[in-house]
Amino acid sequence: MDIIAFITDFGNDDWYVGSMKGIALGINPKVKLVDITHSIPAGDVHAGAFALLSSFWSFPKRTVFVVVVDPKVGSARKALVARVDEYYFVGPDNGVLSLVFRQGKTVEVRALKEKRYALPYISTTFHGRDIFAPAAAYLTKERSLSACGPPYPNYIRLRWPEPSVYPDRIRGEVVYIDHFGNAITSIDAFSIEKLQTSTKEAKCTGCEAMPIRTHYEEVEEGKPLALIGSSGFLEISVNRRSAASTLGISVGDVVEVFSR
Amino acid sequence: MDIIAFITDFGNDDWYVGSMKGIALGINPKVKLVDITHSIPAGDVHAGAFALLSSFWSFPKRTVFVVVVDPKVGSARKALVARVDEYYFVGPDNGVLSLVFRQGKTVEVRALKEKRYALPYISTTFHGRDIFAPAAAYLTKERSLSACGPPYPNYIRLRWPEPSVYPDRIRGEVVYIDHFGNAITSIDAFSIEKLQTSTKEAKCTGCEAMPIRTHYEEVEEGKPLALIGSSGFLEISVNRRSAASTLGISVGDVVEVFSR
Amino acid sequence: MDIIAFITDFGNDDWYVGSMKGIALGINPKVKLVDITHSIPAGDVHAGAFALLSSFWSFPKRTVFVVVVDPKVGSARKALVARVDEYYFVGPDNGVLSLVFRQGKTVEVRALKEKRYALPYISTTFHGRDIFAPAAAYLTKERSLSACGPPYPNYIRLRWPEPSVYPDRIRGEVVYIDHFGNAITSIDAFSIEKLQTSTKEAKCTGCEAMPIRTHYEEVEEGKPLALIGSSGFLEISVNRRSAASTLGISVGDVVEVFSR
Repeated sequence: MDIIAFITDFGNDDWYVGSMKGIALGINPKVKLVDITHSIPAGDVHAGAFALLSSFWSFPKRTVFVVVVDPKVGSARKALVARVDEYYFVGPDNGVLSLVFRQGKTVEVRALKEKRYALPYISTTFHGRDIFAPAAAYLTKERSLSACGPPYPNYIRLRWPEPSVYPDRIRGEVVYIDHFGNAITSIDAFSIEKLQTSTKEAKCTGCEAMPIRTHYEEVEEGKPLALIGSSGFLEISVNRRSAASTLGISVGDVVEVFSR
Repeated sequence: MDIIAFITDFGNDDWYVGSMKGIALGINPKVKLVDITHSIPAGDVHAGAFALLSSFWSFPKRTVFVVVVDPKVGSARKALVARVDEYYFVGPDNGVLSLVFRQGKTVEVRALKEKRYALPYISTTFHGRDIFAPAAAYLTKERSLSACGPPYPNYIRLRWPEPSVYPDRIRGEVVYIDHFGNAITSIDAFSIEKLQTSTKEAKCTGCEAMPIRTHYEEVEEGKPLALIGSSGFLEISVNRRSAASTLGISVGDVVEVFSR
Repeated sequence: MDIIAFITDFGNDDWYVGSMKGIALGINPKVKLVDITHSIPAGDVHAGAFALLSSFWSFPKRTVFVVVVDPKVGSARKALVARVDEYYFVGPDNGVLSLVFRQGKTVEVRALKEKRYALPYISTTFHGRDIFAPAAAYLTKERSLSACGPPYPNYIRLRWPEPSVYPDRIRGEVVYIDHFGNAITSIDAFSIEKLQTSTKEAKCTGCEAMPIRTHYEEVEEGKPLALIGSSGFLEISVNRRSAASTLGISVGDVVEVFSR
């Protein structure tokens, strides 16, 4: 059973996602199509990369991910095809796949050049339909990366705000704000365990220290807390409210965990 | 053929829905995944319960419904698995499944406890991915409720504003506002038939009496009407407009049908 | 392998789309269900028609399209079933299918009347679930248009703003604004080639002349350009911005291409 999973900034208002799916089904009628999200903010490569990083491992091995957040579509930017461990990826060379590449044990990245894996007429504005979706559909059938193009090790890498670990505190950044207004940071659970103290608090730019707890309901409605979220990273939350709007948090804000 | 249908308040902006689907496909690669909606207002258990009540019967028997509107995720609240007639349900014990339980001829409700039907590591904030989606996928394969956990008859029940039927009028409440701004009430078609008169009108808090008609186009554009909607309940509508914003209607408002 | 693809104005907030899918799966458990979009503005028949025109050809032959933008649901308006070349269509007779009918080599349009292809109880407000989805599901199984009802050649046709081609300029209209704010016009690539000049510019009501380019990145961020979009029509865009809001463009605005 073959799966193509999609992450794009196309939104759900127009026919763009449907067009990609139609093309994929024409090439492999048996493929299963799963939407991860099409609501990445337009052109926000970092948000797309983080959504992919947080979700790909939930899918069965051999899933092919089509990730199209592609503000430079039609320009000279490269198209990529990759295998990371047993997962497959297709998308533009702008860093949107690179957070997953950082994590893989075995990573093979190639330039997607083979014209046979594209529509006969390629538009300048919709490579999702004309290049990426058909390449993904062929990959589900043939599973040959080398047929797509030559190795391409110099792909663009996004900066990842690796947490700084000091004896008494850890410093990271907000990397993503989700639908509920939770602010997900780059501080991972493993780093927090290194802090030699049992009483820890978190604070972010312009907000007061808050307790680190394990679930939302441990604080009163409307009160802030930090917890290890479902992606394995520290999140700043407000019980039953949006932390982003209640506390005025944005992507890039510094967050610190410290002993108390 | 097995189906899992989803109702959540996760929105379509992040990867949360995709993660649940990836997990389900890893357990049962042949399952069909259908989104009912992921746009239930955050934490609105009543809206989730009504969406389920209005849609489950449209699906084939044996469909497994995963309903995750779960503001108390990670706390001591129970998880439930249930069979109502020939449909299956998985979700938190907060009432979100209870409007369907009211309706069933045969209702079996159990606490979902078996660890084998969950991911090895369970987060405190995303039981949709870690507990509910895998349980649903196992149910599509094994169909054994008793393997999930012990009977749990004391599940939480939502209040349903049962219509009050008097000789000359019926009194109910607005229970849901839909995408078009139609205000769906708890007054069912069967109760309205009991009113011993052929000329009936409806009115709601703060709005004037309006005719009961059978379709929108029977009144002029911008004019209010009431009709029996597709869920079998009286709806307050405005032709080609939002009744909710035009008439200022909210969930919980009293609606009356009366003889004229 | 059979596909039903959906275009509606139902939104993704309620259970309406899920209900249609549940009904379709009950009739043909093997059918693949693809959402093109459910975010057509409420009652905007022109937008629905253009979304269909732009996407249907991306799907495999034999796909059945269910198009429900249906403000007159429940009134005397007809329901249609059609075959255009090797594609199938189901929807109300209000013009929403008519832009595709214009394009077909062989077009067969019938009134959808056969009660056997509908739910036993038909609501007055949700023909998507009660009439169109079941008809589409039966079509994927039986492929017989003539069983659905009699020929109906007098279906409603939408006006299409055919571009006016003069020796030195072409005049058309904005027909659709997409999620990115691109303004798609009725001026097709083929008409533009007829202009006997290599230097062409475009302008729209209330905005200055802009260059015609092949991709967004050929102008600076925030600058306007025109290009042949992925549907084969001239689009007015602003690099990394919404052209609609930056330039104040609306559907129906006149756009001209001229020699410079």
